[in-house]
Amino acid sequence: MKIETKVEKFTTPLYLESGRILEPYELKYETYGELNEDKSNVIVVCHALTGSHHAAGTYEGDRKAGWWDDLIGDHKTIDTTKYFVICVNVIGSCFGSTGPTSKIYPTEKEYRLKFPVITISDMVRAQIALFDRLGIHRAEAVIGGSMGGMQALCYAIEYPRFAKRHIILASTYATQPWTIAFNKVAREAIIRDPHFQNGEYDKEKIAEKGLSGLSVGRMSGHISYLSPDSMITKFGRDYDPRDGLYDLFGKFQVEKYLDYNSNNFSKWFDPLSYLYITKAINIFDASRNYDSLEDSLSRIKSKITLISFKSDLLFLPREMKHIEETMKKIKKGELVSYFEVDSDYGHDAFLVEIPKFEKIIMRALEE
Amino acid sequence: MKIETKVEKFTTPLYLESGRILEPYELKYETYGELNEDKSNVIVVCHALTGSHHAAGTYEGDRKAGWWDDLIGDHKTIDTTKYFVICVNVIGSCFGSTGPTSKIYPTEKEYRLKFPVITISDMVRAQIALFDRLGIHRAEAVIGGSMGGMQALCYAIEYPRFAKRHIILASTYATQPWTIAFNKVAREAIIRDPHFQNGEYDKEKIAEKGLSGLSVGRMSGHISYLSPDSMITKFGRDYDPRDGLYDLFGKFQVEKYLDYNSNNFSKWFDPLSYLYITKAINIFDASRNYDSLEDSLSRIKSKITLISFKSDLLFLPREMKHIEETMKKIKKGELVSYFEVDSDYGHDAFLVEIPKFEKIIMRALEE
Repeated sequence: MKIETKVEKFTTPLYLESGRILEPYELKYETYGELNEDKSNVIVVCHALTGSHHAAGTYEGDRKAGWWDDLIGDHKTIDTTKYFVICVNVIGSCFGSTGPTSKIYPTEKEYRLKFPVITISDMVRAQIALFDRLGIHRAEAVIGGSMGGMQALCYAIEYPRFAKRHIILASTYATQPWTIAFNKVAREAIIRDPHFQNGEYDKEKIAEKGLSGLSVGRMSGHISYLSPDSMITKFGRDYDPRDGLYDLFGKFQVEKYLDYNSNNFSKWFDPLSYLYITKAINIFDASRNYDSLEDSLSRIKSKITLISFKSDLLFLPREMKHIEETMKKIKKGELVSYFEVDSDYGHDAFLVEIPKFEKIIMRALEE
Repeated sequence: MKIETKVEKFTTPLYLESGRILEPYELKYETYGELNEDKSNVIVVCHALTGSHHAAGTYEGDRKAGWWDDLIGDHKTIDTTKYFVICVNVIGSCFGSTGPTSKIYPTEKEYRLKFPVITISDMVRAQIALFDRLGIHRAEAVIGGSMGGMQALCYAIEYPRFAKRHIILASTYATQPWTIAFNKVAREAIIRDPHFQNGEYDKEKIAEKGLSGLSVGRMSGHISYLSPDSMITKFGRDYDPRDGLYDLFGKFQVEKYLDYNSNNFSKWFDPLSYLYITKAINIFDASRNYDSLEDSLSRIKSKITLISFKSDLLFLPREMKHIEETMKKIKKGELVSYFEVDSDYGHDAFLVEIPKFEKIIMRALEE
């Protein structure tokens, strides 16, 4: 599989939903496979909150492959011998696209809290500008899970002629208070960390361990990505035998997991990006710029595949079902297929239970 | 209703499960109604993590009544014209019973992190010592929800002749990793707060606002007490209209709720008590000091009423069901009744949906 990682610079303004303008801006993206002559074999993959453009393949020296490597590759479900797959790092993120720690042109000063609030629509608008520049005006499919699914739904509503089908996993039509509450814990933990310094944290000071508040916040995230069942399977009530049971700071296995992963996370993710992207997730509402959800979904002209996971506690299956039901109500039922995958893995299922849904994606792409 | 709030001092040692000793210690408790002549009309009520001995009635100058005021009182479900109700503040707590901010006798120094880890069994053992002193050797019932339910189950197993019946709400036989994870977020937020100072926080310094980390931690708690449905009912996607939607720190109603309640909470609850009590909850396992759950439950001689709530995500109904099933397995099925209450209020239902379960308690008491 041919993999290319590139950065594209834009000097044209990006008009944001808030009325503010991002100018100039950059987008980092990765492609898998080869674009055919008439540029008709494109699949756009959209990443989630803490994901990046690195969706597949393994970088030299890395142990871990891209976040959907099991799905994307030569002769895999999203077959790179056939399709040209593009994944763009969203604006606001911290992996190469313009975000809160980018510099305000033409100064050397970083945006920090001066960065504008961005929305899912803004992320998608930026990607469309990139595809325009690459001469790509249509896609076979747009696919994404979680916040990636929000982007896919946004593509379907706002660019109804861009892609033939949209495959949305573990996502919603509008973020519900339960999810906003999980994000709230993380956001507060970040903001209240004395090292956060109202966004002016010293990168060097937090370089070694990251911002502690981001680490605490990530723990809240982890809970929402898992489920009571997946935690029982993964950890049970296992207790570290080196710790005495009556040691106040002795740890259960689940606590070690949260420690390890969240302490690592704060080393590679930026706290401001976490604030901006969770804000975009919180305010996501596919009906906001329309009269109603019926109105916004009535714009859709492509096939829609909805894949939810039974134990997903971050974006409940019924939220996805509501999209199907609304499509049926407005007589667009023939465009939509809804699948509820039986998984105990919670929200994480869209990343880790690929054998349980890859056939749904394969069939959708072959349609 | 006659209400009395008292403190009892013990100079006899309290032998803890850990092997350590608490000596001397104090227990603060509240009673409702009047003890009859043969001391046979006692009902013991056990409180949850952040509860206290103040279960009913309203103190002069207070706006809010005790935490189970709707249930306990003259001619209420737990009828104080008939019963003498006692609720004891658990050891480790911060409302008058000996806890981590108590002084180490005979010094003026507070325990802080030198306080021993306590368990649910220890809390119950201390209460039994109090009842002994009061000449109370039997009870009509022991009733509690959440951590109060753990205590009630512990009474049933460890003091099988003390009470005629045990009524356990929204609780478990052993704390599962999902709940330990929610506690973990809170514990880490506390420990990592720079003002925590390894337990030596300056009470005066944090007097005004409380420890910020405790407040963040409480937010994680609140999520686990509610449910996706109760949040939709309570908050929906309501957004504070004074905040611009594109203001990074603009707040949804659910965020305001979490802010308000958790910022208040940290003013009246002690961070060390939070650490010690969540530790007791985390390590609670009704089978720990026995060969198995079958073995521990086989000691029970009283009636057991189990009341779970359909949407409880902190202690799932199936955890309560497992107690019933195990009782049946060991041929104690005739002692146990299991009820799953249909409520959308999540774990909080045991505090706020009293009309939905008071009849179950009434029938159990009348049996």
